[in-house]
Amino acid sequence: MPALILIDRPAIGMPGDGPAFRVLPVGTPVITATDLGITRGDGIFETVAIHDGYVHAAEAHLQRFARSARMLDLPEPDLDAYRDAVQAGIRELGPVKDAFAKYVLTRGEEYSGVPGARGFVHLDVNPAWSRERTTGISVVTLSRGYARDIAETAPWLLQGAKTLSYAVNRSVLREAVRRGADDVLFTTTDGFLLEGPTSSVVLRLDGIFVTTPPESGILPGTAQMDMLDLLAAEGFTTRIRDVTLDELAAADALWMTNSQRLATPVHTLDGKDVTVDRELTDRLNDQLLRRTV
Amino acid sequence: MPALILIDRPAIGMPGDGPAFRVLPVGTPVITATDLGITRGDGIFETVAIHDGYVHAAEAHLQRFARSARMLDLPEPDLDAYRDAVQAGIRELGPVKDAFAKYVLTRGEEYSGVPGARGFVHLDVNPAWSRERTTGISVVTLSRGYARDIAETAPWLLQGAKTLSYAVNRSVLREAVRRGADDVLFTTTDGFLLEGPTSSVVLRLDGIFVTTPPESGILPGTAQMDMLDLLAAEGFTTRIRDVTLDELAAADALWMTNSQRLATPVHTLDGKDVTVDRELTDRLNDQLLRRTV
Repeated sequence: MPALILIDRPAIGMPGDGPAFRVLPVGTPVITATDLGITRGDGIFETVAIHDGYVHAAEAHLQRFARSARMLDLPEPDLDAYRDAVQAGIRELGPVKDAFAKYVLTRGEEYSGVPGARGFVHLDVNPAWSRERTTGISVVTLSRGYARDIAETAPWLLQGAKTLSYAVNRSVLREAVRRGADDVLFTTTDGFLLEGPTSSVVLRLDGIFVTTPPESGILPGTAQMDMLDLLAAEGFTTRIRDVTLDELAAADALWMTNSQRLATPVHTLDGKDVTVDRELTDRLNDQLLRRTV
Repeated sequence: MPALILIDRPAIGMPGDGPAFRVLPVGTPVITATDLGITRGDGIFETVAIHDGYVHAAEAHLQRFARSARMLDLPEPDLDAYRDAVQAGIRELGPVKDAFAKYVLTRGEEYSGVPGARGFVHLDVNPAWSRERTTGISVVTLSRGYARDIAETAPWLLQGAKTLSYAVNRSVLREAVRRGADDVLFTTTDGFLLEGPTSSVVLRLDGIFVTTPPESGILPGTAQMDMLDLLAAEGFTTRIRDVTLDELAAADALWMTNSQRLATPVHTLDGKDVTVDRELTDRLNDQLLRRTV
């Protein structure tokens, strides 16, 4: 059963009293035709995994949400309201093994004349990702059209913010399907690996686990960092650094990570087989599911 | 008085009977928390100017709407439904000299399991643009981060489609304000002029009127083409071609054009004065307002 929470006062300092949020029947329209979230994709979101009622990396996601808000000069989100709204949504969901919550903040009404904001949380059962997490997925590389230094040289392009303007992130998935693949890895115009449209990427290069850095305009991933922490705890060497496309092509193994799908091994990259380390992948996902921070 | 029309069957072949659209009280929420238009900016829009109840370039906008839908692999919009919905909205608006209608198509519900779509039209009185149209505006150039050939080499980046994912188009306006300017002209990484975030651009270069071509991933502008047609009818030479940043810096005069603001002269570019041809600008805007196709 999905659940819907409308947050009437999603940002700090918004006028009004009474509760900051309320439970609504699922499917109730919550966004007006003049909300900048719908007309301009002008807002931000986070998706968190919920396991046995427990929100994984809850604070890391809230902090990233606040970071995205700053990158877009949005009003400061009321993290307490979002935290409580997610908990209210979990109560609405009832006992569910594996669920997710997506929470959103928009810039609000375009023509109201006052700075506004609108927030909501949608919760539902997490789709089963068992095939992806075990057998793996087929991935193609696609150019993101930008050079590696874009976040530094043109911050107004909002690379690394988790915005509602994700039409390109959806479009590249359709291009992947046209190419017979399941997912995409973005590349820069100057030969570097970035991330996926809704995932981070972790590679094993000569036995060392490497992931790409936020400095190149990618989104700092929570599952990505958890995976690196787990690997470091097992004694593996881990690195956060730029990865060239030559290195990508030579990787021993490759995973795409996000909060919902966790560590998803890649079995095919641009039509070429990649080895899937099933034993390590299963162990990582088992630990990722059991995380308690 | 604004007006709101909800289009229940915005795409060809959607099931159901009865009217394709209905008038709703302004401010009624129309978009659910799980509509891909809000969660992913996955949809398209058009804005048309309405003068004395007459929609300017109505068919050109509808055709561009259909083109954007194709670029995003969206269901084919029912242009008759949109045309009629805009007319119904105009009746709701009542007698208004200068108005606009913004119409939207989203990909609809993410979790419905069937391809869906959602549409609406928002209409309101056009803000007065007289200062911008006469005195002009101050503009800064900002990199779009892409090379000129991006639409050809990476069509999955959707350059040239009028999507709901406009967070960057809004972000650059905040950057312009930080730099003390009103608007932005996007440039390529390889030294070419593109367009504004919500405008086309027309330059006078040694007496010849030049605008930038859709091949470089810009949106084909309706006011842009109308302005060039008017100039050609007056006997001026006009060209649609790539413009280098050196040419931009050397322009005799410069206009940004869109359906609502029409031909807006630029009086300052990156902090340097640009001559405003007030007499020509007034004549053009007068004719642009009187267009009957």
